[in-house]
Amino acid sequence: MKPASPKPIKAAHAPPRARATGYPEPFAARVKGREKRPLGDLFGLQNFGVNLTRLAPGAHSSLRHAHTKQDEFIYILEGYPTLVTDAGETRLEPGMCAGFKAGTGDAHHLQNRTESDVLYLEVGDRTAGDAASYPDDDLQAVLGTDGRWRYLRKDGSAY
Amino acid sequence: MKPASPKPIKAAHAPPRARATGYPEPFAARVKGREKRPLGDLFGLQNFGVNLTRLAPGAHSSLRHAHTKQDEFIYILEGYPTLVTDAGETRLEPGMCAGFKAGTGDAHHLQNRTESDVLYLEVGDRTAGDAASYPDDDLQAVLGTDGRWRYLRKDGSAY
Repeated sequence: MKPASPKPIKAAHAPPRARATGYPEPFAARVKGREKRPLGDLFGLQNFGVNLTRLAPGAHSSLRHAHTKQDEFIYILEGYPTLVTDAGETRLEPGMCAGFKAGTGDAHHLQNRTESDVLYLEVGDRTAGDAASYPDDDLQAVLGTDGRWRYLRKDGSAY
Repeated sequence: MKPASPKPIKAAHAPPRARATGYPEPFAARVKGREKRPLGDLFGLQNFGVNLTRLAPGAHSSLRHAHTKQDEFIYILEGYPTLVTDAGETRLEPGMCAGFKAGTGDAHHLQNRTESDVLYLEVGDRTAGDAASYPDDDLQAVLGTDGRWRYLRKDGSAY
């Protein structure tokens, strides 16, 4: 008998990710108020991850960054985040979506500049050898073969 | 100067997929009333696809199937579809999600048994060499190196 697949769940009931961020300080403070609930992991998915992510007022989704290998996609469920990319700023609203293709170098993130929470789905694949660049900050990130991100200064030195 | 990334859009404004289904008859009739709006493709994403999919009353999301390589994930935005898997039936509601890990053989699909539309997001990766099995129907599918699905009878003969 094969093991039963996990049953569907209410996404809002999924447990929050244990570790809030891997960023070193002073960068970790910028994502204070961000809560990620991994959804795909609950079903054993390995090729991509899906998170239900909540941004309290003032929180950022991440530092502004671009991936070399990982495609990313977001769909806004609640609230009005500001998307910041190389092209400028766009105010998003529920029902809007955006995608960030790997390798373009166009860095992006969301900022919650409102007084209400923002809730969105984010999807990203797990392509080996991924790295992330941060045009606004003295940071670079490399995905290890263990699946964990390592954060370094731009000169390669450790925080 | 690098090309600008595509701007965020309202997902409901994305154009529907040109080809409604690749299923041969009599199977195509079961997904009549299904409309898929590819979202990830609009942003050039290649590692996974995201669709905004609407099921009119009576429509099925697909034949009940299982993938060998592709992980799948759904998030219900509107309506009350019935998820059918090897384990039985589950009525879903807005805010619920489910994942279908590749290789388990547990076949799944959604049926809209209500009088109202169902709207959901679906995510699937694009791992080469994927295939799909259909326990309830005389059908098998193989993903070609051209990225297109070929549908055959279980004995390998063409429809």
